[in-house]
Amino acid sequence: MITLKSYLRGEWVEGQGAGATLVNPSTGEPIATTSTEGFDFGAAVAHARDVGGPALRAMTFAERGAVLKTLSKAIHTHRDALIEASILNAGTPRSDAKFDVDGASGTLAYYGSLGKRLGDARWIAEESEQLTQSARFFGRHVWVPLQGVAVHINAFNFPAWGLAEKLAVAFLAGVPVISKPATATALTTFRMMEVLVETGALPAGTLQLVCGSTGDLLGHLGAQDALAFTGSADTGLKLRGMHNVLSSSTRVNVEADSLNATVLTEDASDDTYQMFLRDVAQEITQKSGQKCTATRRVFVPASMIDRVQADVAERVDRVVIGNPAHKDVRMGPLATKQQLEDFRAGVAKLVAAGATVVHGSPTEVTVVDADASKGYFVGPVLLRADDPANAAAVHEHEVFGPCTTLMPYETADEAVELVARGGGGLVVSVYGDDRDVLAKLVLGLAPFHGRILMGSKKVADQAIAPGLVLPSCVHGGPGRAGGGEELGGERGLRFYMQRCAVQGDRALLDKFLG
Amino acid sequence: MITLKSYLRGEWVEGQGAGATLVNPSTGEPIATTSTEGFDFGAAVAHARDVGGPALRAMTFAERGAVLKTLSKAIHTHRDALIEASILNAGTPRSDAKFDVDGASGTLAYYGSLGKRLGDARWIAEESEQLTQSARFFGRHVWVPLQGVAVHINAFNFPAWGLAEKLAVAFLAGVPVISKPATATALTTFRMMEVLVETGALPAGTLQLVCGSTGDLLGHLGAQDALAFTGSADTGLKLRGMHNVLSSSTRVNVEADSLNATVLTEDASDDTYQMFLRDVAQEITQKSGQKCTATRRVFVPASMIDRVQADVAERVDRVVIGNPAHKDVRMGPLATKQQLEDFRAGVAKLVAAGATVVHGSPTEVTVVDADASKGYFVGPVLLRADDPANAAAVHEHEVFGPCTTLMPYETADEAVELVARGGGGLVVSVYGDDRDVLAKLVLGLAPFHGRILMGSKKVADQAIAPGLVLPSCVHGGPGRAGGGEELGGERGLRFYMQRCAVQGDRALLDKFLG
Repeated sequence: MITLKSYLRGEWVEGQGAGATLVNPSTGEPIATTSTEGFDFGAAVAHARDVGGPALRAMTFAERGAVLKTLSKAIHTHRDALIEASILNAGTPRSDAKFDVDGASGTLAYYGSLGKRLGDARWIAEESEQLTQSARFFGRHVWVPLQGVAVHINAFNFPAWGLAEKLAVAFLAGVPVISKPATATALTTFRMMEVLVETGALPAGTLQLVCGSTGDLLGHLGAQDALAFTGSADTGLKLRGMHNVLSSSTRVNVEADSLNATVLTEDASDDTYQMFLRDVAQEITQKSGQKCTATRRVFVPASMIDRVQADVAERVDRVVIGNPAHKDVRMGPLATKQQLEDFRAGVAKLVAAGATVVHGSPTEVTVVDADASKGYFVGPVLLRADDPANAAAVHEHEVFGPCTTLMPYETADEAVELVARGGGGLVVSVYGDDRDVLAKLVLGLAPFHGRILMGSKKVADQAIAPGLVLPSCVHGGPGRAGGGEELGGERGLRFYMQRCAVQGDRALLDKFLG
Repeated sequence: MITLKSYLRGEWVEGQGAGATLVNPSTGEPIATTSTEGFDFGAAVAHARDVGGPALRAMTFAERGAVLKTLSKAIHTHRDALIEASILNAGTPRSDAKFDVDGASGTLAYYGSLGKRLGDARWIAEESEQLTQSARFFGRHVWVPLQGVAVHINAFNFPAWGLAEKLAVAFLAGVPVISKPATATALTTFRMMEVLVETGALPAGTLQLVCGSTGDLLGHLGAQDALAFTGSADTGLKLRGMHNVLSSSTRVNVEADSLNATVLTEDASDDTYQMFLRDVAQEITQKSGQKCTATRRVFVPASMIDRVQADVAERVDRVVIGNPAHKDVRMGPLATKQQLEDFRAGVAKLVAAGATVVHGSPTEVTVVDADASKGYFVGPVLLRADDPANAAAVHEHEVFGPCTTLMPYETADEAVELVARGGGGLVVSVYGDDRDVLAKLVLGLAPFHGRILMGSKKVADQAIAPGLVLPSCVHGGPGRAGGGEELGGERGLRFYMQRCAVQGDRALLDKFLG
């Protein structure tokens, strides 16, 4: 049994008491414990604010970026060990573990390069603007780092990328971080943190790690702090509603449930159709469907639904399920017993709402090199709802696993309306080759989404899958998806900065705002 | 007695029951009543979403801007009548009423011009960006209007500007508005709404007005709606904590209490010192100190505090107080009896915290052409706290009236620390002529403020006063100030829009995103 430590105030520390137990989801066996009992979180927050913040603010963007590059390289160097940890504790086959670990190093490297591009500045100044008739009295909006701490609370599905993508943005903005991975899969994060600390590149107080319960940590947040959360809408609601957070206007970014959709249009060429099929199958099975960006609703022209159903079923049947350490396996178990129970209950909820399971089963699964009665395995489940306008749960309840629901539509307007019933999503993808139809879908769907992937013939072999979050594009969505926004290159830095309009003598503004 | 009506679903309507009574604050006499009892706010919200929204989204920025120009001109045409209403119901002398009414027409005109500049588009597209190695697969971030309603709740101190500044931004962004002025001073807003409706320029459903209680209006807000509030931190906290608002990620912008400060430096030239004096006196007395941007804390070098105290006292003594309709009067009563009581209690709170009243009185006042026992009059009150580090309430409790507290400081670092104790403010002003000292103050204070006015010799006769909110600069502040941001030219539109990253064939993106 491994004992996970937290990293607070520059030291590795263990909590008191029994704490929480982490298991191997492929076998159900306990592998580690962790506790935060007895930690002085107030002191950790003060350490970030008083030691980490000043250190970061004294560095230029280029200097902060150079640290991020070092962190990225260290993760890449220790890639195999991190992948092993992920296979053991997250149940991810090598390909899924790489998606997480390489996502971590890639995002850090991206923000490292951005830091280099932002150069020797320590803040971001917009252009000078004339404010009145005066040729001397001007205004200039300047973005400066908040002087508090950024607390990051991450989801169980991306133990490596989750820490890295939030850290990269806050660190480059100039704000120190306290990061808390989901306890269930924290082994990978703990190992990654060991790697990051060993680089010696992190200035004191700029990154702390909490493995286990956050205790009273969040109660210490105030007006110069920021809280970024990825996870369930229920928890997001609780965090956002905390009295100290509301009363001191603590910045909060939530990335929560999302009923991501895809829309296939009638005019899709064969290349585009193949791209659509590839993406749908991948979004169902990659990371066993445990991605906030996975496709949960598939809208296809009514005339094509039978063909799509058969083709998707054929694709997902190729995926070998079982022990993630086995070389042939492409899909591992769900991350926890609770996730498996929630998955089964979720499918039942969709069925009760009028959907039918048309392929696969939420209870029976064939596995390779594993015991399905001990691990949290489930195979891909394809549902179909032929009357989507009257299947509310399909648009409102996210089943977090290898599962999607096929639905027919008639017109582009109807497709937009049905997708919008998700109440706001992280990503929607549209596939087709009629420019006017694509335009109608994109502009109709944009108000409800943080991102739209448009598949068409000319990019069929070049586009990313919709579930991939690139650091250069914003990640987040309105409404049910949490109303937040992360990443997006320089855009993401703003969450950790205050914009201030400085008014005065133009010469002075230009002199010291650069 | 006037009966104020609300304007809902294209009709002027009266509520049932006795409703609320509006008084003339100079005499305490009732002048109007208003009620919203029996209104169907759900239908009003639906009208905005279903009729107003589509109408606005069908218009280009230039077309929306043209409407705003028409509204601006109409207000200017009816300026005298609106000023009369303000004198009667808000107790503002002509100069203060103009500040509000001309602010309304000016801000509408500014956003009208911005609409013209944004031209024939209906959304805002950022530049295309390469996302991967592919020369075809690109990304483009596009801002589109939310498809819901913007509910605006305004404060009593700016019955004209409050509606106009929020309306201008939402309308130009493409989002319909339901506006609710503070009941106590709603006469001016009601009259202004009559003027706006009479223009015939407002498409159906794009602007509705609620005079009186909001009833269950806010309970109808969801994922595509936005709520912008200006008023007390207590009310802001309640609105932000509403379950439907939290659970559907309704956008909320709060502009609340702010202990705005000013800092005079030792090296100020005489021109700069005179500018400082002029601004401090104006911020104490303009609109009887009832401005969210008024200066509540004045930090001066310890060696200069006696001189500053005498000079400020001499300046405010020149201000004639009394009947706002009288031609010599420059300062009217507070807006309500409650405000007068709160003012007196607030001054007592500051005194209990260690401040001393060094000029004026919260209870005695000499008035011209008015009865001080009937109207809500109070004269300028100057307080002084010689130990500002140990006078917490001075930094935390906003006394909303003609009152400010003088405090000494020794070093620039100390000044920054003391100002920051306000916990986040709308505006801070700094006056001096040493470039290095100014730079230190500006960069030290920026994280805690939405705006900084820098007074120096070369702009002494050209700069605006710190309390003036220009539409081209952001208005809002972190922490205690509410954590929001309004105006700022094009920046303000973002609050009413969704940013969506569209990924796909570069040629298609450029084709239909423009």
